[in-house]
Amino acid sequence: MQVKMAKNYGFCFGVKRAIEIAQRNRDSLTLGSLIHNPKEIERLERDFDVKVQEDVSAIEPHKSVIIRTHGIPKGDLAILKEKGARIIDATCPYVIKPQQIVEKMSAKGYQIVIFGDANHPEVKGVISYSSTPPLSINSLEELQVKKLSKKVALVSQTTKQTPKLLEIATFLIARCAEVRIFNTICNATFDNQEAVKELSQEVDVMIIVGGKTSSNTKQLFHIAKGFCADSYLVEDAQDLDPQWFKNKKLCGISAGASTPDWIIESVRERITTF
Amino acid sequence: MQVKMAKNYGFCFGVKRAIEIAQRNRDSLTLGSLIHNPKEIERLERDFDVKVQEDVSAIEPHKSVIIRTHGIPKGDLAILKEKGARIIDATCPYVIKPQQIVEKMSAKGYQIVIFGDANHPEVKGVISYSSTPPLSINSLEELQVKKLSKKVALVSQTTKQTPKLLEIATFLIARCAEVRIFNTICNATFDNQEAVKELSQEVDVMIIVGGKTSSNTKQLFHIAKGFCADSYLVEDAQDLDPQWFKNKKLCGISAGASTPDWIIESVRERITTF
Repeated sequence: MQVKMAKNYGFCFGVKRAIEIAQRNRDSLTLGSLIHNPKEIERLERDFDVKVQEDVSAIEPHKSVIIRTHGIPKGDLAILKEKGARIIDATCPYVIKPQQIVEKMSAKGYQIVIFGDANHPEVKGVISYSSTPPLSINSLEELQVKKLSKKVALVSQTTKQTPKLLEIATFLIARCAEVRIFNTICNATFDNQEAVKELSQEVDVMIIVGGKTSSNTKQLFHIAKGFCADSYLVEDAQDLDPQWFKNKKLCGISAGASTPDWIIESVRERITTF
Repeated sequence: MQVKMAKNYGFCFGVKRAIEIAQRNRDSLTLGSLIHNPKEIERLERDFDVKVQEDVSAIEPHKSVIIRTHGIPKGDLAILKEKGARIIDATCPYVIKPQQIVEKMSAKGYQIVIFGDANHPEVKGVISYSSTPPLSINSLEELQVKKLSKKVALVSQTTKQTPKLLEIATFLIARCAEVRIFNTICNATFDNQEAVKELSQEVDVMIIVGGKTSSNTKQLFHIAKGFCADSYLVEDAQDLDPQWFKNKKLCGISAGASTPDWIIESVRERITTF
């Protein structure tokens, strides 16, 4: 099987940075998974003694705690400070931005609209920075039933798709006197998405490598599926099913922003054997 | 010929207000036409001695000067003040808004984008309130070749169509870190447009009554034409051509925001005789 890699794929700047931070801080905890990739989390625990703790109240005083790429809610940060934790901030700078915007705009009296998945850790963190109850919506349909103020500020989860953000912005502009739109979608996400769009149109089968809970990985898969019916999402080489490649000539490969190169490489190698 | 009036048409709040102001201020000048309707301007001159002066430098000291609905450039206002003119402000409050926004946003360092016709008096006025050179664009195509800043504030000429504003906003949001969008399109315009859209789909022939230099009248005509090929723009009953109504059953009528009721009524009456 012949393979072709997407023009852009895999680790983004924020993830690379967080992993380097974790590797420099052996024997520390991360509050929640550092990144959304179980295999890489296993490697960090095995090789660097960096363990995941999901529950902030269970963290012992004065521990070294790494803040994950997605950030954490303001309240959790306060608890860590109370516990005298040594806080190592690996929050992606692109995630800190919407947190700061929401804090500032809510203080200025703007109604906050957050386009994102309210259950995603990044969005939970961003929501916590609003001093007034924000509207957190994951689709235009969800927004359509909400009561809007005259002055609205809109931010987006960093991994959302730009066309969807534009749809939401458009809805608001037609209804509000002032809409302040902060395009907080990350370029790395956009570049990976554009590359998948391109590649999935020229291949017979498309493989997206990444964590099944990773928002940006799921989106890459969704985009690929739109252009190439035979698209599959795998976490590693073991998930590959030889049946997928029967009678196919060219396989495209891309990977989510939290997928390490060593996993992508093993998937690529395995596919070439089919 | 049977006629049907649009649900909303004719004089808007700002125009009604300006005419009342003019009628209360006999023997005054307006700097440029008070509203974009030559017949009504004639009536004000004939019945109330309100004359039009196009050239600010030609105005004698200490005259009573009415500021037109569209507003005037900041520089012209300064000249009037120097001349000791008694200034009577009939600028539409919906036009004052984009002037104020542009003044404030340019002072705060936002690049100003004005969606409007740079030759229209309203837009000339709004442009003059920017402390930095604004981008004044009349279409998305014009914007596409401009250099954009990271932080942009967008306002619109009050008589523009919302879908076009949304197109321009969408373009900016995808390219700028922050876009502050002020929907300064006037509801009256929108309501008249929606009513024309509806009515022009159910009639055989559509008549739009208004000044041929009136931006909002021209837009009503443009919308009507999109749904009803036999649409015509007339300034008064004399412009009506009986040929237009041959073999037609139902004629729709609408009128621009600066068209007085007495003109609309005479057009309606005439059409019923065909």
